[in-house]
Amino acid sequence: MSQPVAIGMDIGGTHVRVGVFNSDGHLLGQHEASIAAIAPENGLNLIERLIQESLDSVISPSLLGIGIGCTGPLDTVHGLINNPYTLEGWNSVPIVERLSKTFKVPVRLENDADAAALGEYWQGAGREAKRLYAVTVGTGVGTSLIVDGKIYRGLDGSHPEGGHQLIDPDGPACYCGHRGCWESLISGLAISRYARGAKDNGHLLAMAEGDPNRINARLVTEAARAGDPASLAIMQKAARDFSLGIINIISFFVPDVLVLSGGVMKSADLFLPTLEQTLKTPNPMVPFDRVHILPAKLGYYAGLYGGAYMILSEAI
Amino acid sequence: MSQPVAIGMDIGGTHVRVGVFNSDGHLLGQHEASIAAIAPENGLNLIERLIQESLDSVISPSLLGIGIGCTGPLDTVHGLINNPYTLEGWNSVPIVERLSKTFKVPVRLENDADAAALGEYWQGAGREAKRLYAVTVGTGVGTSLIVDGKIYRGLDGSHPEGGHQLIDPDGPACYCGHRGCWESLISGLAISRYARGAKDNGHLLAMAEGDPNRINARLVTEAARAGDPASLAIMQKAARDFSLGIINIISFFVPDVLVLSGGVMKSADLFLPTLEQTLKTPNPMVPFDRVHILPAKLGYYAGLYGGAYMILSEAI
Repeated sequence: MSQPVAIGMDIGGTHVRVGVFNSDGHLLGQHEASIAAIAPENGLNLIERLIQESLDSVISPSLLGIGIGCTGPLDTVHGLINNPYTLEGWNSVPIVERLSKTFKVPVRLENDADAAALGEYWQGAGREAKRLYAVTVGTGVGTSLIVDGKIYRGLDGSHPEGGHQLIDPDGPACYCGHRGCWESLISGLAISRYARGAKDNGHLLAMAEGDPNRINARLVTEAARAGDPASLAIMQKAARDFSLGIINIISFFVPDVLVLSGGVMKSADLFLPTLEQTLKTPNPMVPFDRVHILPAKLGYYAGLYGGAYMILSEAI
Repeated sequence: MSQPVAIGMDIGGTHVRVGVFNSDGHLLGQHEASIAAIAPENGLNLIERLIQESLDSVISPSLLGIGIGCTGPLDTVHGLINNPYTLEGWNSVPIVERLSKTFKVPVRLENDADAAALGEYWQGAGREAKRLYAVTVGTGVGTSLIVDGKIYRGLDGSHPEGGHQLIDPDGPACYCGHRGCWESLISGLAISRYARGAKDNGHLLAMAEGDPNRINARLVTEAARAGDPASLAIMQKAARDFSLGIINIISFFVPDVLVLSGGVMKSADLFLPTLEQTLKTPNPMVPFDRVHILPAKLGYYAGLYGGAYMILSEAI
């Protein structure tokens, strides 16, 4: 007897991960490979191989469909990856058409932040929250709003970018075209940049063996924990800017659950006290105190779960 | 033969307006009265009289229901006005229960920004927009998101407050508990406050016959148009802060239509060029150029139309 399964896939800037799930939503197996600097045709071949390996690892699979979370920009309406910024050469790559032809099943493509949020909604920290807002702070800052289990989309199916909300109009220039957006202030790259430019970064430079290019967010976090004043100041500013962005998200959406994920959660001890302090400010209009702010539960697998949910929520 | 009608009502801080609509959505008559400094019991009596007058102005009305937009905070779930900030003494006033008993019809209560946005969605500038975001800048700043003709609500039915998004963390303190929120920077009250505090406000003071308390946003707008440098600087700052808030709204929601209303539209010539300039910044991720930014069409009547729509959209 065959068992119905769904494939959930997460395509990032460096890796592609593929998971196979049974119809109860259990992850049965996971395969991954580096996709960095791989051109689209070879990349699609690689992805097909990973899917096939995942299916081969399961007894008598009957594939229901493939759900993909991918680093954007994407054209989710037409199923195209359109992200030469992160995936070199990936212009208008018709991944949905290709995989549907190969595997003869429904294929869905969503922004990676949306896929991860769907995963957390289905099996993670935001389980069945009526309104779930997810924020991922890593190299960049991604956001997603899930209402009643459905992705909120902007016009023409576009993906809103809460990570580019403006926090400090005199802040650093971002590739989004504006200055001082959230991502430009709190992302891993932003923290590295601040640390490299700080006048009093001697301690960090020593940790990086004198090479400023080796100063990164992880190093700044470590140095801050060890009490380095320059690193503490950088993390305090980032924590404040992080809190301001969270305040705005709550004012705009008042979600039942706000899920935080990405590298920022590894330095939660440096970020969250400032956020908690800021959230204590009494607000007569918005119930800030009733929003559940929770760490993500599914880690790197959130996108896989979300991909599987895209298929299973419609198939079953 | 009786004709089915709906009552749409708008309760503001100073006035209550009542409109009677036929089932095709045409406004058949409008009655209003001052509600400033009127205690709840007298206020409810007044409101009942206005409704009765409106019904009496129509031939053989058959009332389908009453839809109310009211200045918040409200408890829309339990139908309570809970706004002692604007309506003195109006604590937990059960207007929905009271009017349903008196008129024996369904009564719905919504935040005034939501009601006005529903009106613009139904018969105004945002007609049938899949995603409509409305911003009203007057004494305060109200916002509303309408998705597929339904009000987006926060947890426990709360009303999100985009007007209190943070724009300048070093800005003026607001009653919302934070500094430099949008309302504290661009509302009519904010502009008056800046003008009263400006060092070079001689021209404005002369216009106000020497009384700083008579300097208001209307005066600043007039003076800016006449070329007064102090007033121009205030309006330019407000226009910049206004634009930053709009950018954030588009990044977070990517609405098909963004409707602007309130006093700000009377000084559109001073605000909109800066906004248009800001929106020209190319953005690789969010389709800023495809968002239709439009002035509201229904003016003071938007809330009445929205109230009627609450009833007619369910009754017909």
